Amino acid sequence: MKKILLLFTLALSITGVQAQDSLMLRKLYDEALVNGKCYENLRYLCKSIGPRLSGSAGAQKAVEWSKMLMDSYGFDKVYLQEVMVPHWVRGKKEEGYIIDGNNKIPVAITALGMSVATPKEGITANVIEVKSLKELDSLGEDVIKGKIVFFNRPFDPRFIETGQAYGTAGDQRFMGPPAAAKYGAVGVIVRSLTESIDNYPHTGTTAYDAAGKNIPAAAISTIAANTLSSMLKLRKLPLIKFYFKQNCQLLPDAKSYNVVGEITGTQNPNKFITVGGHLDSWDLAEGAHDDGTGVMQSVEVLRIFKAIGYRPKNSIRAVFFMNEENGHKGGTKYAELAAQNKEEHIAAIETDEGGFTPRGFSFQGVSGSFLKELNKSWKHLFEPYEADRLVAGGGGTDIGPLKETIPSVVLIGYRPDSQRYFDIHHTPNDVFENVNKRELELGAATIAGLVYLIDQHNLSF
Amino acid sequence: MKKILLLFTLALSITGVQAQDSLMLRKLYDEALVNGKCYENLRYLCKSIGPRLSGSAGAQKAVEWSKMLMDSYGFDKVYLQEVMVPHWVRGKKEEGYIIDGNNKIPVAITALGMSVATPKEGITANVIEVKSLKELDSLGEDVIKGKIVFFNRPFDPRFIETGQAYGTAGDQRFMGPPAAAKYGAVGVIVRSLTESIDNYPHTGTTAYDAAGKNIPAAAISTIAANTLSSMLKLRKLPLIKFYFKQNCQLLPDAKSYNVVGEITGTQNPNKFITVGGHLDSWDLAEGAHDDGTGVMQSVEVLRIFKAIGYRPKNSIRAVFFMNEENGHKGGTKYAELAAQNKEEHIAAIETDEGGFTPRGFSFQGVSGSFLKELNKSWKHLFEPYEADRLVAGGGGTDIGPLKETIPSVVLIGYRPDSQRYFDIHHTPNDVFENVNKRELELGAATIAGLVYLIDQHNLSF
Repeated sequence: MKKILLLFTLALSITGVQAQDSLMLRKLYDEALVNGKCYENLRYLCKSIGPRLSGSAGAQKAVEWSKMLMDSYGFDKVYLQEVMVPHWVRGKKEEGYIIDGNNKIPVAITALGMSVATPKEGITANVIEVKSLKELDSLGEDVIKGKIVFFNRPFDPRFIETGQAYGTAGDQRFMGPPAAAKYGAVGVIVRSLTESIDNYPHTGTTAYDAAGKNIPAAAISTIAANTLSSMLKLRKLPLIKFYFKQNCQLLPDAKSYNVVGEITGTQNPNKFITVGGHLDSWDLAEGAHDDGTGVMQSVEVLRIFKAIGYRPKNSIRAVFFMNEENGHKGGTKYAELAAQNKEEHIAAIETDEGGFTPRGFSFQGVSGSFLKELNKSWKHLFEPYEADRLVAGGGGTDIGPLKETIPSVVLIGYRPDSQRYFDIHHTPNDVFENVNKRELELGAATIAGLVYLIDQHNLSF
Repeated sequence: MKKILLLFTLALSITGVQAQDSLMLRKLYDEALVNGKCYENLRYLCKSIGPRLSGSAGAQKAVEWSKMLMDSYGFDKVYLQEVMVPHWVRGKKEEGYIIDGNNKIPVAITALGMSVATPKEGITANVIEVKSLKELDSLGEDVIKGKIVFFNRPFDPRFIETGQAYGTAGDQRFMGPPAAAKYGAVGVIVRSLTESIDNYPHTGTTAYDAAGKNIPAAAISTIAANTLSSMLKLRKLPLIKFYFKQNCQLLPDAKSYNVVGEITGTQNPNKFITVGGHLDSWDLAEGAHDDGTGVMQSVEVLRIFKAIGYRPKNSIRAVFFMNEENGHKGGTKYAELAAQNKEEHIAAIETDEGGFTPRGFSFQGVSGSFLKELNKSWKHLFEPYEADRLVAGGGGTDIGPLKETIPSVVLIGYRPDSQRYFDIHHTPNDVFENVNKRELELGAATIAGLVYLIDQHNLSF
């Protein structure tokens, strides 16, 4: 009888905890949806600051404003972490032409980040189209030498999550240029990493070999890529050539900062749950979805906790990482300092997949039984918000290094709906107008919900 | 031993069926994502035909083109169902002003569908702001008579599904005008049914009383509604007045059509699974999400089946209903004819909540045990596509009448992500450019998946 009573009491108290968690999540969502600040903060970041590539004046302005914003919220600590970052500049807008005999057909191109410039007069050469690094290898130096290599493998539309299509096509942009250089190519043109057929070239970083040979590399819009590919297939004489000119350069490393805000834990001030995105953005637009939404959601999590009067047991940090796009120096620095300061990190959550409707989270390197227990315990809490996919998967670029210095940390990636992301990713279209207020706010609330649950119950599945 | 063997064989065959279902769903999604036609079809409907309110030349053009499109796909039957529909026209663009002493502040308004016109000179009157029909009742004729009633209850942002916010605010638009007329109001202005703070008035139908008194009613943009409300609060003398003029009229009913395409069932030609959306749209834009996406997804389901060579056991119909927006005459006619022709209907699926990323389906009036079994059997099949929310809920306006004439039918609503819908719903912003290709295609594939499963396994949960 005693045992039954005990079980009954236990059951009641479990039910009580669950009811409390459920009520708290509702509170977090209400605060985000009724009094949310992340949309207006994002408007300022996009419209009054704008592009903020590492080392740029925009990046510095963004750092200063972000610190001011966090200060204004009255967090327990707000500070900068100094970090040296690559300083790449695009220079004058690129030019590109398909040369068909006497005709020059202008095409939309943009230099890949970290690429070198062409000579001042540009590069003109025959083009060899390839679909993969493997195909490049099979052709070898005899075919490649002196040519412009055109990587043209499109996104595979069959992936449901577009990030997977990006993942499987992305080797062309990152590894393509040095691979082509090895065979004596004079330049590289890469089909933009998107399924969308449009006329925006998508920039993004490419591998830069400080010791080796670097050749100029540019992204070309999908419409122009299709045109170039069609014209190459005609194989009429004289053969199609391609011309491009770009003026980018890599300046000496610049001083910059991660921006960190913290609510100190009441019970475990030296145990941390980190939520972060990256403050830097490509230079072509406003870095709205990449990753203005992520940083504004991160700080919103802390603002929501303060607004509803939630005092976390553990220390909660919002981190605006610098230099995710072309170097990852901010993430690396954060991990170094965490180890130096002997911080214990329970979890780090990264939001860098756009400010779209939440679907859930991916947990990096966790066991099957962890995932099973996690879902048993918490999935139902996120179900009313349709954000309950708790799956295995990557954490993110900026939090990755933390696992190296503090192996006990659990890395978690916030997963919004992925369908629209690569339509605008790294293009002039990544602007505030393409962010939906409710989608952004729901994301902030969802992340706040997970941080709350981890803070209350840890991650001991 | 025999029993164990039997169980074993049964288990194997169940596994076999599930594997086959899973493979078939993958095929449907691949066809939609790789060879999908709904996006280009939608482009034509939006850009070459455009607005298509019941009775308009656009609606007639849309009927003719839709039939041609279905004919081109070589379905087993393609035909029109004649139906008489209300023929309301907006006339010259509306004008509205807040009158503050000698100042006239122009505001964005649009006549509600089925509303009457103002007198030629417009209406000028004092304004009484109310938040609900109940508040209107509490004020009564003494306060209301001779005034313009301004319904200004905003969307409740706390609803996760925006359709619920629409549902709870919508009585103001539909029932507000006749309720105000009863108390002697001279006109009605309704806050646009959206959470978005913008300057687009959202039209939509209001109740028209053929026998009773009708007063002119218009929607006002949320920005203008906030302005008007703020100015009313000042209560300075002379009191704020409102002026508006609209030129709409209700013409005699017009002849129009539902458009029906059918793949006839190999086993049960007289048993039907209907998939439909509505072909008519409001006159202010292109009816892209409302409901061009729905009709184009419906016909895509049949196209996908033909493309992959799937021959259904039961007859599958794509129905483009006419007149969902201001009369529901097409849906009513379809239900009448189904009964007349003694058709057996297994299920009817409506897609009329926009062409956004799929989340799942809502099943109308089904039991808890039905839902439980349904989820046990099919949820996992939709999980890889993140479209696996199979919940209780409404079917839709156009398929509703079918339940009256054929009570055994199961009504099902297709549920896409709801966050962006009411930003553009019934406004000039409901254009093709606001539809994402992949989101639209994933929706078509998801609906095709459900139709396939119903066709194979029925709905006997």
